[in-house]
Amino acid sequence: MLKVGLVTIGNELLSGFTVDTNSSWIGQSLIESGARISWHLTVRDDFDQIKIALDSVPKYCKALLITGGLGPTHDDITQETIFEYYGIKPVFDEEYWKLLTSKMKLRGRTLPNINKNQAIVPETGKGNVIPNKIGSARGIHIFNNDIDVFVMPGVPKEMKNMMKHTVLPWIYNKTNSKIYVNTIRTTGIMESSLAEKVGDIIQSSENTEIAFLPQFTGVDIRIISSDRVNMEKAQKSINKRVGKKYIYGTDSDSLENVVGQMLLERNLTLSTAESCTGGLLGHRLTNTPGSSSYYLGGVNSYSNEMKINVINVKKTTLDKYGAVSKEVSIEMSRGVRDLLKSDLALSITGVAGPGGGTKKKPVGLVYITLIHNEVLKTKEFIFFKDRLINKKLSSQVALNMIRNYLLND
Amino acid sequence: MLKVGLVTIGNELLSGFTVDTNSSWIGQSLIESGARISWHLTVRDDFDQIKIALDSVPKYCKALLITGGLGPTHDDITQETIFEYYGIKPVFDEEYWKLLTSKMKLRGRTLPNINKNQAIVPETGKGNVIPNKIGSARGIHIFNNDIDVFVMPGVPKEMKNMMKHTVLPWIYNKTNSKIYVNTIRTTGIMESSLAEKVGDIIQSSENTEIAFLPQFTGVDIRIISSDRVNMEKAQKSINKRVGKKYIYGTDSDSLENVVGQMLLERNLTLSTAESCTGGLLGHRLTNTPGSSSYYLGGVNSYSNEMKINVINVKKTTLDKYGAVSKEVSIEMSRGVRDLLKSDLALSITGVAGPGGGTKKKPVGLVYITLIHNEVLKTKEFIFFKDRLINKKLSSQVALNMIRNYLLND
Repeated sequence: MLKVGLVTIGNELLSGFTVDTNSSWIGQSLIESGARISWHLTVRDDFDQIKIALDSVPKYCKALLITGGLGPTHDDITQETIFEYYGIKPVFDEEYWKLLTSKMKLRGRTLPNINKNQAIVPETGKGNVIPNKIGSARGIHIFNNDIDVFVMPGVPKEMKNMMKHTVLPWIYNKTNSKIYVNTIRTTGIMESSLAEKVGDIIQSSENTEIAFLPQFTGVDIRIISSDRVNMEKAQKSINKRVGKKYIYGTDSDSLENVVGQMLLERNLTLSTAESCTGGLLGHRLTNTPGSSSYYLGGVNSYSNEMKINVINVKKTTLDKYGAVSKEVSIEMSRGVRDLLKSDLALSITGVAGPGGGTKKKPVGLVYITLIHNEVLKTKEFIFFKDRLINKKLSSQVALNMIRNYLLND
Repeated sequence: MLKVGLVTIGNELLSGFTVDTNSSWIGQSLIESGARISWHLTVRDDFDQIKIALDSVPKYCKALLITGGLGPTHDDITQETIFEYYGIKPVFDEEYWKLLTSKMKLRGRTLPNINKNQAIVPETGKGNVIPNKIGSARGIHIFNNDIDVFVMPGVPKEMKNMMKHTVLPWIYNKTNSKIYVNTIRTTGIMESSLAEKVGDIIQSSENTEIAFLPQFTGVDIRIISSDRVNMEKAQKSINKRVGKKYIYGTDSDSLENVVGQMLLERNLTLSTAESCTGGLLGHRLTNTPGSSSYYLGGVNSYSNEMKINVINVKKTTLDKYGAVSKEVSIEMSRGVRDLLKSDLALSITGVAGPGGGTKKKPVGLVYITLIHNEVLKTKEFIFFKDRLINKKLSSQVALNMIRNYLLND
């Protein structure tokens, strides 16, 4: 794999007020082109600091990516420093400056002289500008003897655009190799159980790296290989071993999209009755464009009165079993289904926390019911002490319940 | 300010499959103790790479923080490398090993020998262990001539615990200075308008750094100063100039918490009727513990049928004006208020996108209505083309509408 160095420049990154998401994006996109970040340094917007950074780039790096500090203000000293460091004469690009100023004129504004540095290019033979299809600050590609240097803005959209159109094609041309990356998304199974199930597949897969990426709502299994056949073999074996009960998709699939697609294919409609999740399930379902074709709506029946008056939960059931009970969850699902005349309905009731728990009904206790015609599936869960995690997990489990039901239907 | 170096170790960080949130947390917490990260390097889990990293730490760093690679597996080579690099003899801590094994015995399991490295400590006089109150891997504090080195696990909870109890107190003891950081949270006003309003305050504030942190849902104004009086002066001036119409809180305040508190103080109840946001407003309102005291619930009236049958929107209004209209938004708010008998109600209807837009009703068109007794406030917005951003913005604007209404009520 081609080894690449990365220097990110910016006080905001070091002070922690900006989380550096550029670097992870760059890291991932390089891998698929057969390269990887081997060394990543973050320094302040400061002449000396940037020079120290450039001095310490390891010799094994054959390309160096630099982001940040290319804007027009006094903080933006990256360009000047880079030119000085590599001994390159800056040339003023009259044409580009005319273009920039005329663009601004069209908007009825004058471009301040401070923007002139955005029209600076390297002297001929020492480098190229990298076009910016989105903003006004162009990037620079410097040809150095040992290393090619790519300087880009820190604005994510502009950086990504330059990566896609200039840097990644250059890298791909160097490596001439393609790395295959695939992610299998699971939910409802713990990392350790997954490890037990597929441990031998990980052991026996050649030239293939398999890793678990656990989150609260599920575990992703990432497969990286330089060989498409090996990669597909590993993926197939894992799919077979783990099964559709837990695997809901690949790569950037979301559970709500997958469920939506299944409802659409089966021509079924859904409604929701939420208590402790307060609307999160509906929010997730409607994140999918076109969800109005199958999601008829729902109620956030947060109060008992609303449960009784709107979705017909019986007062006697509430009195006898309490709002967080299997019985109430069943009546909630039936009630909203009948109210909205949907084919299926999902209901969630629970103690989200941090308060409101009792010995018999602790924080984290959640009941979820799925109803479809005469079919009724209710499950009890005991999640965690954290309100937001409990809400997230409840919505995730509810979506996976309906997915599994539709799979086997 | 005391200059601190940071080395984060981990292939996952470089490949981009893990976003490095540890570093931003460390960066922020150092600032408040009068120190700052001046140099941050990320390298792979590899002997040579870690040594190269340690070689390149700038001389001006008086403390070095290292995270990652302290677990029990073959990848976890940080400890061994650090001991070798600084010429420190590893000593096996019999006592701690007994403690670890007996703990595991209590859970009916045996601790594998691979965990023995977690009982290694530096020879006397060369360093201390840093206690781990959460996990089993302890940290190491090495006393070197020029620099104090703190090695911690990469697991965020364990790292944060060690920072709080060991590293930050050590740094505070060195700097003996406190830096004041305060964030003013605004919504409903653009960064450029804010800059115009408070530009002269930024210019005239002594020893005080003021920065804008724009997000889609609002702009945070961050004030950093070594002087409490200057900081409070700047904060007061900004508060006065920008006003409560836009400022909803400080630091980690959320708009939904602030609104909840206001409803609670005024002993008022709220219900919601959501169309394009699909439950997000209810979800946000119920993220606040204790929200059941004022939030009675809501409906996600996604379909026209639900609007008509559940919250009494007139079919003639839908036919005449369409679901995304001022008129329907008013009937939605009135309908849900009457259904749930709440004091106030908020309704949202709009075209979230990416599809569903027309020339007359483009993607991003949203109507929001607040109703309270005879008071009726409706606003029309044209947001963006992105579905998720439109949902977020709609819920934010709705919450700010009720906040402003209660402020002036």
